[in-house]
Amino acid sequence: MKKVIIFGVGLIGGSFALALRKAGAVSEVVGFGRSTATLEQARQLGILDRIGQDVAAEVGDADLILLATPVGQMAELMGRIAPHLGTHTLITDGGSTKCDVVAAARASLGNKLAQFVPAHPIAGGEKSGAGAAQADLYQGKKVVLTPLAENSKASMESVRRAWELCGAAVSEMTPQQHDEVFAAVSHLPHLLSFALVHDLAQRDNRDQLLSFAASGFRDFTRIAASSPEMWRDICMSNRGALMSELQQYAAELYVLHQALESNDAAKLEEIFSLAREVRSAWTQQ
Amino acid sequence: MKKVIIFGVGLIGGSFALALRKAGAVSEVVGFGRSTATLEQARQLGILDRIGQDVAAEVGDADLILLATPVGQMAELMGRIAPHLGTHTLITDGGSTKCDVVAAARASLGNKLAQFVPAHPIAGGEKSGAGAAQADLYQGKKVVLTPLAENSKASMESVRRAWELCGAAVSEMTPQQHDEVFAAVSHLPHLLSFALVHDLAQRDNRDQLLSFAASGFRDFTRIAASSPEMWRDICMSNRGALMSELQQYAAELYVLHQALESNDAAKLEEIFSLAREVRSAWTQQ
Repeated sequence: MKKVIIFGVGLIGGSFALALRKAGAVSEVVGFGRSTATLEQARQLGILDRIGQDVAAEVGDADLILLATPVGQMAELMGRIAPHLGTHTLITDGGSTKCDVVAAARASLGNKLAQFVPAHPIAGGEKSGAGAAQADLYQGKKVVLTPLAENSKASMESVRRAWELCGAAVSEMTPQQHDEVFAAVSHLPHLLSFALVHDLAQRDNRDQLLSFAASGFRDFTRIAASSPEMWRDICMSNRGALMSELQQYAAELYVLHQALESNDAAKLEEIFSLAREVRSAWTQQ
Repeated sequence: MKKVIIFGVGLIGGSFALALRKAGAVSEVVGFGRSTATLEQARQLGILDRIGQDVAAEVGDADLILLATPVGQMAELMGRIAPHLGTHTLITDGGSTKCDVVAAARASLGNKLAQFVPAHPIAGGEKSGAGAAQADLYQGKKVVLTPLAENSKASMESVRRAWELCGAAVSEMTPQQHDEVFAAVSHLPHLLSFALVHDLAQRDNRDQLLSFAASGFRDFTRIAASSPEMWRDICMSNRGALMSELQQYAAELYVLHQALESNDAAKLEEIFSLAREVRSAWTQQ
């Protein structure tokens, strides 16, 4: 690829650029973003060759554009770039939810819709920003593509190839499947972890409680230190699937409460044993 | 101390013995347990000097006895040792719950009750057994004593000193306070973690779900790989406080569900922000 453009040069966008560079897959990387300081930092870190000045002028000859902004900003951004996209320019994204990104694309990309192949890289962590970007972030990680019916096979393969060049294992789902899977294995656990810390944070004896919290609490609540804004957006974007998960989980807690109330030790052990078995098998995969 | 006896030579009991030895605080450590193989292993690892054969004959001249068996076995064990205890012999324990251990002691230790100073060392982890024991397990860890009104000041100070010799920071609470604190910061998170994995384990698409689970899920569910038997016992022992925590947590989830249902992004952010703030401050302590 001669030219790749990154919108949002943080952990996800910056690492994508570094990985493509390291693979020798791109000649020039241009970055756009809301913070001049971040863009300048990214240039100094060798993530970007140039800081873009004029979206309309830059996007026409780009081979690939990565949208790595918060999901909430993507619709507006798509509307801005759509009129100027070259016919060969492909777009992908790094959003953690997919139904909403696809809806934004359908609303904002107009006749360029087929050039957009939605993606969710399963990578990240507590650290964020261009300074945290690394060339091997996607190495061995999963990337889920949620292709549109409008995507050509060639477009899909090119975008798949770009993520594979970053070291990722790429799979495909529908946007609905994607959002349901991640509501269960990612969004729900984040919500539950935030909820526990918030629950304790409101107590009169919160300092005493926290002073006796140990390693189990530490691991359970690590994700409660995640970005409130990012997780607000993810939860709102995927609220349907997440509410359904939350209801199912509440039913699970009801069963546990019933077991405690009726002194049903065998039921508790049955639940804990299946959980332990499945969790241990997962670790060994 | 000339002689220390450990009942239950696993991670907790074995590490207590190793730590007292390392501190030069004990001449002889004798161990009892249900598994001859474990006891033999503990002897070979230098945890024990001798494997005890006859409880009645051994306990009379012991300076300190640690009960490090599962809590469910303590009442029977206390009944067995009570008639043979020397007048100077002190007892402590390593149980994770305290109201039930204190109740067992009141029921089973008879006129030796004052010699028992209940303790909960906040240490452990996924590994268990004598093979996992280490002399520095308690170094810098917290130990909570829940003294009885019957304990003499001298008995309490001796037991406190023994745990301090292991490197622990010792504090005191009532058994009720203890069980309420640990219901909130330890027992509830374990229950919630087991519940999430059990919830997903019952799904038709469980393999697909687990294949996309990442580091957030890994940390949140690490404690779901804990011993089902041990956690069944802890939850049953502390069911009153745990049910109360579970109800409070369910109310918290209800608030989150309401926020999602009514599209109240600000409410979500408010909850996540307080959680993040408190969790981050806790890490930096």
